[in-house]
Amino acid sequence: PTSFVVTLSCPDRPGIVHAVAGALLEAACNIADSQQYGSPSTGNFFMRVEATTSSTQAELSSALAPVAEAFGMKWQINPVGQKVRTLILGSKDAHCLNDLLFQQRTGTLPIEVPAIVSNHRDLEGLAEFYGIPFHYIPVTPDTKPQAEAKLLDLIREHGIELTVLARYMQVLSNELCTELNGKAINIHHSFLPSFKGAKPYHQAHARGVKIIGATAHYVTADLDEGPIIEQEVIRVDHARTAEQFVQMGRDVEGRTLAQAVQWHAEHRVLLDGTRTVVFN
Amino acid sequence: PTSFVVTLSCPDRPGIVHAVAGALLEAACNIADSQQYGSPSTGNFFMRVEATTSSTQAELSSALAPVAEAFGMKWQINPVGQKVRTLILGSKDAHCLNDLLFQQRTGTLPIEVPAIVSNHRDLEGLAEFYGIPFHYIPVTPDTKPQAEAKLLDLIREHGIELTVLARYMQVLSNELCTELNGKAINIHHSFLPSFKGAKPYHQAHARGVKIIGATAHYVTADLDEGPIIEQEVIRVDHARTAEQFVQMGRDVEGRTLAQAVQWHAEHRVLLDGTRTVVFN
Amino acid sequence: PTSFVVTLSCPDRPGIVHAVAGALLEAACNIADSQQYGSPSTGNFFMRVEATTSSTQAELSSALAPVAEAFGMKWQINPVGQKVRTLILGSKDAHCLNDLLFQQRTGTLPIEVPAIVSNHRDLEGLAEFYGIPFHYIPVTPDTKPQAEAKLLDLIREHGIELTVLARYMQVLSNELCTELNGKAINIHHSFLPSFKGAKPYHQAHARGVKIIGATAHYVTADLDEGPIIEQEVIRVDHARTAEQFVQMGRDVEGRTLAQAVQWHAEHRVLLDGTRTVVFN
Amino acid sequence: PTSFVVTLSCPDRPGIVHAVAGALLEAACNIADSQQYGSPSTGNFFMRVEATTSSTQAELSSALAPVAEAFGMKWQINPVGQKVRTLILGSKDAHCLNDLLFQQRTGTLPIEVPAIVSNHRDLEGLAEFYGIPFHYIPVTPDTKPQAEAKLLDLIREHGIELTVLARYMQVLSNELCTELNGKAINIHHSFLPSFKGAKPYHQAHARGVKIIGATAHYVTADLDEGPIIEQEVIRVDHARTAEQFVQMGRDVEGRTLAQAVQWHAEHRVLLDGTRTVVFN
Repeated sequence: PTSFVVTLSCPDRPGIVHAVAGALLEAACNIADSQQYGSPSTGNFFMRVEATTSSTQAELSSALAPVAEAFGMKWQINPVGQKVRTLILGSKDAHCLNDLLFQQRTGTLPIEVPAIVSNHRDLEGLAEFYGIPFHYIPVTPDTKPQAEAKLLDLIREHGIELTVLARYMQVLSNELCTELNGKAINIHHSFLPSFKGAKPYHQAHARGVKIIGATAHYVTADLDEGPIIEQEVIRVDHARTAEQFVQMGRDVEGRTLAQAVQWHAEHRVLLDGTRTVVFN
Repeated sequence: PTSFVVTLSCPDRPGIVHAVAGALLEAACNIADSQQYGSPSTGNFFMRVEATTSSTQAELSSALAPVAEAFGMKWQINPVGQKVRTLILGSKDAHCLNDLLFQQRTGTLPIEVPAIVSNHRDLEGLAEFYGIPFHYIPVTPDTKPQAEAKLLDLIREHGIELTVLARYMQVLSNELCTELNGKAINIHHSFLPSFKGAKPYHQAHARGVKIIGATAHYVTADLDEGPIIEQEVIRVDHARTAEQFVQMGRDVEGRTLAQAVQWHAEHRVLLDGTRTVVFN
Repeated sequence: PTSFVVTLSCPDRPGIVHAVAGALLEAACNIADSQQYGSPSTGNFFMRVEATTSSTQAELSSALAPVAEAFGMKWQINPVGQKVRTLILGSKDAHCLNDLLFQQRTGTLPIEVPAIVSNHRDLEGLAEFYGIPFHYIPVTPDTKPQAEAKLLDLIREHGIELTVLARYMQVLSNELCTELNGKAINIHHSFLPSFKGAKPYHQAHARGVKIIGATAHYVTADLDEGPIIEQEVIRVDHARTAEQFVQMGRDVEGRTLAQAVQWHAEHRVLLDGTRTVVFN
Repeated sequence: PTSFVVTLSCPDRPGIVHAVAGALLEAACNIADSQQYGSPSTGNFFMRVEATTSSTQAELSSALAPVAEAFGMKWQINPVGQKVRTLILGSKDAHCLNDLLFQQRTGTLPIEVPAIVSNHRDLEGLAEFYGIPFHYIPVTPDTKPQAEAKLLDLIREHGIELTVLARYMQVLSNELCTELNGKAINIHHSFLPSFKGAKPYHQAHARGVKIIGATAHYVTADLDEGPIIEQEVIRVDHARTAEQFVQMGRDVEGRTLAQAVQWHAEHRVLLDGTRTVVFN
């Protein structure tokens, strides 16, 4: 028997759970975990089911298709634990990349990483240690279109399903953001929506906050405004400098990004307008 | 239309969700929220559904009864927001009682409190402010059986569904524990299983821990061993005395107990052997 | 022997600690606790000492005065545990007032409250339960100057040292803010600087944040921009409505405000420009 | 000018701060940070000062020596940022070692690691990536004395000041524990004193706790009873298996251990009997 994750969303109305459960029963599924959510603000219904079955993915798909059509569902079936093909973009700072690669190796993150891209060479050794091809793609205002074209080539060539900006420090073009909509995760080094833009730790220090944080969100053309997947915070006090905020923040950034990537790769994150539903 | 909470548990096997969803559909229910859990260690299945319907509770019950019988379910239906009749036991310290009564008044806690019992008179004024009859029942080793008999009389007389030990500081007899099984919540002023027994903050201080906490659990005959509903912690440092632990702990105790009572009163807590399933 | 708290600030330069410690030794003080901080951004030095001595406050003051003058210090001596005369302003919501009054009664907050002011009558019963005179001072755009005049009369009449806005929901005039500079604490129901202004929980819900919070800060004419004393957060998920944020937030607001008031009343908070130094 | 950390402890009595501050002034020191603590339970006084001066370490030492003698102090002077020579012991699990080495490379941890020891070969590649000699020292009940002798040889040969057990999974002999007293840090994968001994995550799961944690402590002959330096916790729910606890716990263990090592290496941790004073 194999385990599958079914995720779906559709306009909310009575009978969805019954219809889905019926189709799963028909496909000889035993439901291991199931979560639903009806969003009052958008009127959408969301569901994530983990089911174990002797059916193949094709058989399960056939059983669910009529239900999906009847309710106008967006839906997906994925084998549990199947690794999500992931491209990681970095720049100079290694902490987020290090966390992702380590957790990928230990199996905490169900991702495989066929390529790492950076506009600097600093991360090359780390990529090499994990046996992952490193692509140095420098970016200047003039070469940005070509750099993004190379990125898209890599994405297509490697069948990339998820792009992770691990402190990439480059703003993607609107076109690329649109292309990667719902399939690219960024880490912002502040507790959004506080301190958008550059040098958020220095902004936070100047404002005298007592807690700092990090935010993992889907990338959208509207910078720092994408749907939030996960946030984490740590306490600071008056004696910490902005530079210490930067240092302390690394750990939080790494954790927050890795957690968001894990949930995405486990098909736990669904988009509800500008917000996310996270079935964790 | 009315909203109901259905909670159920039974041995896990395929088809439960489909059967329950079918019965709910038959009773014209729209599912607002649904959570399931299959426990690998005990083989039990647990479910909590909030559904809105034009059916009466009796009609809903009739629709679910055959399903419940077929799967050997323990089950309950409760109208959403219906207040749970709650008896609070206190002693001298007011902080837990104060939190419970305040949150009951503001509506955060869906409980009604027809009686407060204490073995000291210190809490009488607080009970009076909230307009709740105060019963002074002193307890000595000799009078304990009579005191517990009075407690049971109050429980029966007022149709009490939940008993809360808000720093009651008295050990209940095995008989009473059995009688109140799954229907009595205690707050222990440590992060269990650390520091069972008396003066846990002083034990914690002597051990030099850096974090202290509180634990809300169902009362069982085996003291401090009941199924845990909720735990909370706060950070402490070397400069705090055991007395300051006591003071800082009050806030955590009050929150932890109130949270556990809220979840219980919203029918979110189900017993899975010595552990709890909390659908929050 | 009596215990005193000495707090002081001055431009940083060598020899301050030695000079202060010398004066304390001269006044037969045993230092129980001492904290210092030199602020790199403002160049100011801050110190808080708790000392036990057989000297009187006047003798201690005489010993310290020459040092204070030599270094150009702003300084204060207060007996440890002496209650700070506090005026609380409320509106309709009781949770912050309830926490403050309860903790004042148990002794956690070293304040005494000679008067409670509100622009609504909802909190009158709570004030009465704690035996504190309640002043109903309604505020309309037209009557605001008179209302603030009455406030100032109360402040003077009762020798008020600290004013606490416990969800007061009224903006103070620039004049009053200036008058109360460093002596008035407000609770804002968001994790500032996120979600300034009205309905922060609804703003937070719309943005889809995963953590909400509260901020206690000194009142300044520049609304929601005052120096932050304390912040606290709690985790939320997609299934919580904005109304549930409001409900969950009450507990955090109460705790955050009470914590800030405690630290202020224990003379642990010093102003360093737009930031606070908190010796906790 | 150079910065030094002075740490000291002695029986508490009046005049210590004044005497120390005087000696520092004599040595032309500017105090950048200073923390004190008088322990009511042991009667000991603790102090940590960071000072900047044009004096040499020898000059500073000469100025402090008479004070240290007069008060019977245990004391140390260390240049700020001077790296502590650290030996790391591992076994098979890489997460703690990975965190320590990464943070050592980025400079967050002021340690240098001349050798890594393990009783398995799994961590050899990671050691190599960071360019650190890896010593494979297998341990069986029979060879334990020889293995510990090799450890001690390495400690002496490399002038090791701190030994870190990064999930080493071997109990050190009483003799070695005594030898390394106050100079060896272990990470226990539970929130001590809960769940001492083997398989703490499985114990925690069986008990149904809602929060799990990790504890970094000094190694003593009395297993899991050493003075606690740091603890961290994370929330879990009923749906997590014991195996998931293990996985989730890795992150907490790594952070907790790295934090404890950082504080130790910054000379922020002082022993007060069975407890620690942490000036952070």
